[in-house]
Amino acid sequence: MLAEIITIGDEILIGQIVDTNSAWMAKQLNLIGVSVKQITSVSDEEQHILEALAQAEKRADIILITGGLGPTKDDITKKTLAKYFNMGFRNDAGALEMVRQIFEKFKRPLLDVNIQQADVPDGCEVIVNRNGTAPCMWFEQNDRIFVSMPGVPYEMMYLMDDEILPRITSRFKLPAIVHKTILTASIGESFLAKEIEEIEDSLPAHIKLAYLPKLGQVRLRLSAKGDNETDIKTEVEVYAKKIIAKVSKFVVIDEDIALEKAILNIMKEKGLTLSTAESCTGGYIAHLITQHPGCSSVYWGGAVAYAYELKESILGVKENTLTTFGAVSEQTVTEMAEGAIKHFKTDYSIAVSGIAGPDGGTEDKPVGTVWIAISSKHKTVAKVFNFSNKRIQNIERSAASALTMLLNLLKETV
Amino acid sequence: MLAEIITIGDEILIGQIVDTNSAWMAKQLNLIGVSVKQITSVSDEEQHILEALAQAEKRADIILITGGLGPTKDDITKKTLAKYFNMGFRNDAGALEMVRQIFEKFKRPLLDVNIQQADVPDGCEVIVNRNGTAPCMWFEQNDRIFVSMPGVPYEMMYLMDDEILPRITSRFKLPAIVHKTILTASIGESFLAKEIEEIEDSLPAHIKLAYLPKLGQVRLRLSAKGDNETDIKTEVEVYAKKIIAKVSKFVVIDEDIALEKAILNIMKEKGLTLSTAESCTGGYIAHLITQHPGCSSVYWGGAVAYAYELKESILGVKENTLTTFGAVSEQTVTEMAEGAIKHFKTDYSIAVSGIAGPDGGTEDKPVGTVWIAISSKHKTVAKVFNFSNKRIQNIERSAASALTMLLNLLKETV
Repeated sequence: MLAEIITIGDEILIGQIVDTNSAWMAKQLNLIGVSVKQITSVSDEEQHILEALAQAEKRADIILITGGLGPTKDDITKKTLAKYFNMGFRNDAGALEMVRQIFEKFKRPLLDVNIQQADVPDGCEVIVNRNGTAPCMWFEQNDRIFVSMPGVPYEMMYLMDDEILPRITSRFKLPAIVHKTILTASIGESFLAKEIEEIEDSLPAHIKLAYLPKLGQVRLRLSAKGDNETDIKTEVEVYAKKIIAKVSKFVVIDEDIALEKAILNIMKEKGLTLSTAESCTGGYIAHLITQHPGCSSVYWGGAVAYAYELKESILGVKENTLTTFGAVSEQTVTEMAEGAIKHFKTDYSIAVSGIAGPDGGTEDKPVGTVWIAISSKHKTVAKVFNFSNKRIQNIERSAASALTMLLNLLKETV
Repeated sequence: MLAEIITIGDEILIGQIVDTNSAWMAKQLNLIGVSVKQITSVSDEEQHILEALAQAEKRADIILITGGLGPTKDDITKKTLAKYFNMGFRNDAGALEMVRQIFEKFKRPLLDVNIQQADVPDGCEVIVNRNGTAPCMWFEQNDRIFVSMPGVPYEMMYLMDDEILPRITSRFKLPAIVHKTILTASIGESFLAKEIEEIEDSLPAHIKLAYLPKLGQVRLRLSAKGDNETDIKTEVEVYAKKIIAKVSKFVVIDEDIALEKAILNIMKEKGLTLSTAESCTGGYIAHLITQHPGCSSVYWGGAVAYAYELKESILGVKENTLTTFGAVSEQTVTEMAEGAIKHFKTDYSIAVSGIAGPDGGTEDKPVGTVWIAISSKHKTVAKVFNFSNKRIQNIERSAASALTMLLNLLKETV
C-alpha cells in the first residue's frame, strides 16, 4: 500500500514555513504499514494542483492532501478538487453545524464566508473537523483514495489520529513495516560503514540499511517489510544485534528515541534528578528535555545564565573565575555544573558555556568554541568542542554533545 | 526563472527527519528573485529519482537536488545522475584534495570509499564542498541547470551561500520579488478577511495576498513580482499601509521577523533588559530569544523552574502561595514574574506556568490551562489561557501568547 502526501500552499514554496506536517504524517503512515512514495509541495495554483493530483494518482493508492482550505481567497483546494473529480457543490449539514458550534464557543457571529466553508464537492464524504472550520473531505476514484485536510497542524493531527488512520487500517490488509534504529556517536559515516561492511553485505533483500548523519552522530536504520510482523522483527533484531556487537563502543542507544528521552528513561528508572545551567545553548537543552511528557519526575529545572550576573547569582560562579578565565572556560563551566548540583539539589547537572556566534569570537576562542561540563554529586567531567561558525548549528551540536556526555556518564555510574 | 527542489532520502519519507533544507533553500531563492515551483521528496530509488528529475526538467529552469551523496551503499544519487545525463565517471582531483584535507584535519586514514567520493559523472562541473566529503555537482542540459548537493544542512547552506546563489544571480537577469508580511493577533482569519475585503478586491493582478494562520495569530503576506524592485516595493507598501490602517489594533508587527526578534529590536533600541521565568514552556521562550544573534545585550537569562523547589529558591515564590493557590495560578505566575525582575535585575520579565499535558490536568484546571505574567518594574499583567490537550502545541502557543503580551506592554509603556 503506497501513499503520497501533497501539501498545498505558497508559504511553503517561498520558505516562510517549514512543512512539518509531511514528516508527521509519513511517520504515522509508516507505523500502520503504509509506505510513503513521495511528498510533493505545490503552490496555490489550480493547474499545478491538478497536475500533482494526476501524477500522484498514477503512483499511489492513497493521496493525502493538506492546505488551501481556509475561508479566504487564496485558498483554492476545494474548488480544484471539485474540478479534478468533476463534481458540483453541496452545503454539508454536519460540517455547517460544526462551524456554527465553533463560532458559538468563541461568541462570534457567523459570516457568509464561514457558512461557505461547509460547501463541499458533492461526491465527497465529509469527515467532521472538531478543531477548526474547514471540513475534511474523503474522495474515492479508480480504486484510489484522496483525503483533503486543513494545513493547520493540530487540526490535521486530530483528523489523522481519530479518523483517517483508523479508516485505512480497518479497510486494508497492510504489510508490517519494521524499523530499527541504532544511534552512534564519535565515529564517521564511512568508518562505520567499513566496520559493518560484512554485516551489511549479508542483509537479505527485504532488509535495508540506511546511514543518517546528524550533529556529529550517525543513526543506522534497518528497515524491513513483510507479512508477519513478529517474523521480520525477529529477523531485524538479529542483524541489529550483530551491528551493535561490532561497533558497541560507539553505540549511544538502540531505540529510535531522542537522546534526551533515553536519558529521562534511565534516570526515571533509577530515581535520579537532573538540572541544567545553560549559557550559549540558551534554554535549548531544557526545551529538548521538557518536550517529553512526564519529564518533571526527573528534570527539576535550571538556569539560563546569559549574563555574568546571573552566572554568579543563580549558579554561584565566582566573579574571580569569570574575570580570570572568562565565561567560556573549563573553570567557569565546571563551577556552573557544580553550582547547579548545589543550588538546585539534583543528582546530575549539565552546564554549557560557549561562543555560539556569529560574533564574540577571539583568536584564542573562535566562534564555535564550547565548553561542556556534566556533574554528578561525586564527579565532574568537562570537555571543549570546536564547532562551526553558524549560531543555530552550534546551539544544536552543543546540546547533542552535552546529552551524549551525560548519557555516557550515566552508563558509567549507574 | 523557476526552480524546483528535489530532496532525496528514505529518512524523509518515513518521517524520521523533517525536511528543513527545502524551506531554507526556497527562502534564499525567493530573495534573489527565483520562484520555487515545487518541492519534491523522493526515496533512494533509482527509477523514482529518474522520474522526479524528468518531471522537474519539464517545469523548471533550475533543479536543486539534495541528499543521497554519502559514502555508503544507500546513497545512489550520483550513480543515478550519471545515468540520467548518460555520463561516465571521472575521479575529480579538486574534490579528492578536499576529502584528503578533511581526513587529515581529523587525523583519520583515507579509506577507499572516501577516495570514491571524488568520483563524479564526467560531464559535470565540481563545486568544492569545504565542509564535507561529498562534492557538489553542477550539470547543464537542454537549457536547464541541475545542482546536486549533500543533504547535511550546513554543508548545503555553505554551498548555496558561497557558490550556487552567486552563480545564479550573475548568470541570469532575475525579476524582483517583493514580500511584505503583517503579523496580526487576536482576530480570526475570516474576520480579518472581511475587514480588509475591499482592499483585497482592489489588488492588481501581480500582487497576491495570503493568510497564514498559526498559533492564534494570522500572518498576512503581500507578494509581488516585477521588473523594477523599487516600483513594486512602493506599490506593495501602499497596500500594506491600507491594510495596517484598517486593522491597526490587531497588528503586532509589519515585518517578516519572529515576534521575539521584534521585541529584541525594540528593547535594544531603548536599552532595556529582559529575563524569563518558565515552568511549562520549559526553556522554549529562552530558546526562541537566544536563537537571535546579539540577543545578549537585551536578554540576561532566567530560570526554568519546573520543580516547586526551584520556583522558591531561584524566583522567590512563597511556599504558601504554591500550596494555597497551586503552581498554575495568577498568584504564582505573578510572583514568578516579579521574582525574576527582583532577582535577575532586569527591566522586564516573562513568566509562564501551566499544564502542558498530556497528564496533570484537573477538573478546575484542565490540560492546556496556562497562566502568563509580564512584569516591568512598575506593573505586572497576568492572563489565563485555555489551549489544547497537545503538549508541544501548548508549549508553542504559550510562548507565542507570552511574547505577544510582552510586545503589547512594551508598546504601551515605551
